[in-house]
Amino acid sequence: MTFKPRLELLIATHNAGKVRELQQTLRELPLTLRYLAEFPDISTVEETGNTYEANAILKALSYAEQTGICALGDDSGLEVDALGGKPGVLSARFGGENASDQNRTEKLLRVLLPHRKGEITARFICCIAFAGWQSSSTEPRTTKPRILNVSTGTCEGAIALEPRGTKGFGYDPIFIPSGYNETFGELSEDVKGSLSHRAKALSATRGFLTQFLRAT
Amino acid sequence: MTFKPRLELLIATHNAGKVRELQQTLRELPLTLRYLAEFPDISTVEETGNTYEANAILKALSYAEQTGICALGDDSGLEVDALGGKPGVLSARFGGENASDQNRTEKLLRVLLPHRKGEITARFICCIAFAGWQSSSTEPRTTKPRILNVSTGTCEGAIALEPRGTKGFGYDPIFIPSGYNETFGELSEDVKGSLSHRAKALSATRGFLTQFLRAT
Repeated sequence: MTFKPRLELLIATHNAGKVRELQQTLRELPLTLRYLAEFPDISTVEETGNTYEANAILKALSYAEQTGICALGDDSGLEVDALGGKPGVLSARFGGENASDQNRTEKLLRVLLPHRKGEITARFICCIAFAGWQSSSTEPRTTKPRILNVSTGTCEGAIALEPRGTKGFGYDPIFIPSGYNETFGELSEDVKGSLSHRAKALSATRGFLTQFLRAT
Repeated sequence: MTFKPRLELLIATHNAGKVRELQQTLRELPLTLRYLAEFPDISTVEETGNTYEANAILKALSYAEQTGICALGDDSGLEVDALGGKPGVLSARFGGENASDQNRTEKLLRVLLPHRKGEITARFICCIAFAGWQSSSTEPRTTKPRILNVSTGTCEGAIALEPRGTKGFGYDPIFIPSGYNETFGELSEDVKGSLSHRAKALSATRGFLTQFLRAT
């Protein structure tokens, strides 16, 4: 077997919770993970896309191009059926640009008050895009990176009456995945890691990366 | 271990060469492959997208929606540097809608005659999209399918002076992958299956499917 250098992979998110989930899922692959914090002068990418896919692609491509390192970009959101799928792709900006996770969950619960007749069904969606260079021998890093994989994961569930639990981040304390009574704020990392939208998208991404590392 | 039914997966292409490559790559997964030929009344999807990704997504989504079966859609093309990336996403229609593979390769060689100073570099691109339903228990097949994975593979190479070999299909007889002297029309299925654009996209798709089958 010939020597293969470890692939450098930039985790293109500032969210510590996401970074941890990515580290967990990718820990057995021959990767050297890099982080945005290592690049203080990097330009932040505005999430101007209309879909999770578009935002994940925007981030992965821009960060890979700025750093010359393969990058994973992600976007996710919560779709509440009673709100016609909102906040959806705007989940992270729901309640204003500078709102905290707590502000956002409280605002969502307020908006949902008139809909409290039965179960308020919802789903989390996560999209992860990989931008990079397929063959380092023929495509030097002076070429633009290309999106080589995009994986989407979904997790069906319902909105809790009030926030419960302190684990996770974002809307986790008010989201009860189907088949459970606890919220993502209460469920263990192991359980969340087996059924969450991000876990599913990450698992597919790991499948892609495993094959990618073998082929290149 | 609980019993898991085999996932039905529709191979959404009429191209016999592509079908064989897909069968080869997916043969070890617990899938029941289905084919467009089994659905004589299905409406053919027009490839109106501007990118390989858009066309692969259009096909996978439409065929999954029409049949209620998870579907793989694909699109591919040949990008010749001397032609600014053409024929690219229009590769299958180069030379007219009803042109044969032979018509198309002959036309391309004619167009390239004035560019025959040195090596004519090119690349094959293939994009494969998976449309389906993530969790059969909570999302009955009455909901619309969703794109859960998109994988892209590239293969760098050069255009031969004339067609060589009878293996493969499309532009294979005039494409020489980097590191080889033979065209894809001459190289064995094993070699092509290890380095082609479609092999790379399929390999990533297999990685996704392996994880998807585990999780659902």
